[in-house]
Amino acid sequence: MFAPVYLDWNASAPLDPAVREAMLPWLGERFGNASSRHEYGRQARAAIDTARAQVAAAVNAHPTEVVFTSGGSEANNLFIKGAAAMMKPGLVAVSAVEHPCVREPARQLRRSGWVMREVGVDAEGRLRADDWRSTLEARPSLVSVMLANNETGVLQDVRAHAAEARAGGAYMHTDAVQALGKIEVDFRALGANAMTLSAHKIGGPVGAGALIVDKRVELAPLIAGGGQERGLRSGTENVAAIVGFGLACELAAKRQREEHDRLLVLRERLEQSLAATGAVLFSKAGERLPNTSFFGFEGLDGETLVGKLDRAGFACASGSACSSANPEPSHALLAMGVAPELARSAVRVSLGRDTTAQQLADFDTALARIVHELRNLAAMAA
Amino acid sequence: MFAPVYLDWNASAPLDPAVREAMLPWLGERFGNASSRHEYGRQARAAIDTARAQVAAAVNAHPTEVVFTSGGSEANNLFIKGAAAMMKPGLVAVSAVEHPCVREPARQLRRSGWVMREVGVDAEGRLRADDWRSTLEARPSLVSVMLANNETGVLQDVRAHAAEARAGGAYMHTDAVQALGKIEVDFRALGANAMTLSAHKIGGPVGAGALIVDKRVELAPLIAGGGQERGLRSGTENVAAIVGFGLACELAAKRQREEHDRLLVLRERLEQSLAATGAVLFSKAGERLPNTSFFGFEGLDGETLVGKLDRAGFACASGSACSSANPEPSHALLAMGVAPELARSAVRVSLGRDTTAQQLADFDTALARIVHELRNLAAMAA
Ligand SMILES: Cc1ncc(COP(=O)(O)O)c(C=O)c1O
Ligand SMILES: Cc1ncc(COP(=O)(O)O)c(C=O)c1O
Repeated sequence: MFAPVYLDWNASAPLDPAVREAMLPWLGERFGNASSRHEYGRQARAAIDTARAQVAAAVNAHPTEVVFTSGGSEANNLFIKGAAAMMKPGLVAVSAVEHPCVREPARQLRRSGWVMREVGVDAEGRLRADDWRSTLEARPSLVSVMLANNETGVLQDVRAHAAEARAGGAYMHTDAVQALGKIEVDFRALGANAMTLSAHKIGGPVGAGALIVDKRVELAPLIAGGGQERGLRSGTENVAAIVGFGLACELAAKRQREEHDRLLVLRERLEQSLAATGAVLFSKAGERLPNTSFFGFEGLDGETLVGKLDRAGFACASGSACSSANPEPSHALLAMGVAPELARSAVRVSLGRDTTAQQLADFDTALARIVHELRNLAAMAA
Repeated sequence: MFAPVYLDWNASAPLDPAVREAMLPWLGERFGNASSRHEYGRQARAAIDTARAQVAAAVNAHPTEVVFTSGGSEANNLFIKGAAAMMKPGLVAVSAVEHPCVREPARQLRRSGWVMREVGVDAEGRLRADDWRSTLEARPSLVSVMLANNETGVLQDVRAHAAEARAGGAYMHTDAVQALGKIEVDFRALGANAMTLSAHKIGGPVGAGALIVDKRVELAPLIAGGGQERGLRSGTENVAAIVGFGLACELAAKRQREEHDRLLVLRERLEQSLAATGAVLFSKAGERLPNTSFFGFEGLDGETLVGKLDRAGFACASGSACSSANPEPSHALLAMGVAPELARSAVRVSLGRDTTAQQLADFDTALARIVHELRNLAAMAA
């Protein structure tokens, strides 16, 4: 199989081999429904309990605060819709750079009488202080501000925002899907009421995620039925995926500091070459994830660039993978005030555990060549 | 590892070894987000397309009618809540023996102004004609009647009910989770607007299911976000689970007839022994799944029986696995008019592909011994 260099870790990380090993028994001789009271069921239940403790420990939460879901999108929807269902319609405020799986459920609340507001961001993609202040003055019931953005990698000051939002009586949620494993994630220290995690972004399997939620928040289940997960998420538990998620969280927390420093060195070297090739780096001055570079080239098309890079053996993204079925320029970049033409040229490179300096050196060379060719073509056409 | 004889296939079936083989590459070198436009993403997308065709073919639906979900509970909730969200509040009618993941979302609709009605069943667990008729006269907007019950195995005449419900202007849904692979399941012939499937009941993995839905039904997504599954189910696709589900459906359809006949022979022999041991068989006279026997013993406790069977090396269920966190007697049995004391003694044995005549002969012996002991204890205590 043709194996391009993978530079799209924010879209999905390969399954960590240790995680895979831990999952395999649960895809083999260890089957059975965790709700069953026989030997098979009890073993499955014990494995879920262990994973719950691992997830909780990795983010400094209590095991009883962990609600397993099928992934990050479900956890975000569970919080937004589940909390709203237990309240009188009010104001739901989310940052203008949230992932669609926060923005869209917030929009859906409009149907049941809620007002939805997007809090604007500055040129780096951080919440604008004025807009944030006036949002709080409007007394939101629900607030969601992500810890790290999937496209730019920019970090928000969730700790401060959580304190302010909660002081005003709101429930505060943060999407930590992209933060986990890359920066420190401490649920207690952040002070949010709820937080979303996803396994497949940290070397765990697709099919598991969690809403970490403090028990004062009343939630209606999104998926109602057999009453699993304290009635908050029904459905036969995906034991293999949950076991993998637990171990992936443990490994992510253990390796986080070291990985952070290693990736930052790689990224800084990459961004020097990008500058030399004429790239405009987005969120350059913002505090960012150590593994993410989002950039564009005046006059070029991002889709074309990514297609050429793919054929040259480098897998990277032109926009948020999750919404890349939709061809519009990045919602986040537009919210940051980036001109649509420049936004349309955007390419995201995201690094991970297997990324090497050599891979990035090869990428630099290929990118410089491709940009040069495309510029020559453009000049000839002009 | 201690490996009891597994007689709880309706709770969850072991992963079929062929399905496992097909999944493994997607838990290894074939990673990547199916929404990504690079080589990894395109391969994942192609694998999902293949699985979609396999699922559709197995149930005589069109691939564009398949919406992948994380499982059966999510698919049932998606239909009930998703269809309701696009309509004016009205009447939602479900059979009194539906799985909680149909009944509970239907109940949740009450909060938004819907009326929820459970259609009563007769002593065998089949819809009562009078109650069904008066339900239709009340003009339901949404109807859900399961193809096969998870506890008793009893079959409903979904084809006739669908025709009647649709003639009255309702959208008709059927939960075919327990039917698939055990009896023929033909979406077109049934004439329902929507149908739920789950992978882990047929030798596929936990973590995949589908709502088969005809495109005239407008649905709001339960999980909104990146827009996957034609906007009906956002979230990074679980490629490994979907690939496994596709193959499991293909195998289930191919083997269905032969398995049906083989299981029926085993079940009939089992039920002769059960009668000899003094068991009361539920839904005895109803048309049933070939693999399911649900029975009780006057004066004994089902939980105790299942616990003793477990220690003797036989894994079976005392009630619906999915709601067995809740200690009340089976909702289905009570709806059938079974006395609560007898319902509390219920034990479910469900057979599958690996079940052998020898296993069942051993089970008979163990059960007869345990029932004898418990009866002696009861007699001594009396
Ligand atoms: C910031 C963010 N939140 C949520 C999600 C959704 O997570 P999942 O793919 O597990 O549904 C993603 C990625 O897709 C993401 O990047
Ligand atoms: C009839 C029926 N419907 C739905 C479900 C739920 O399916 P899943 O476990 O995939 O959520 C089950 C089993 O749990 C079932 O037996």
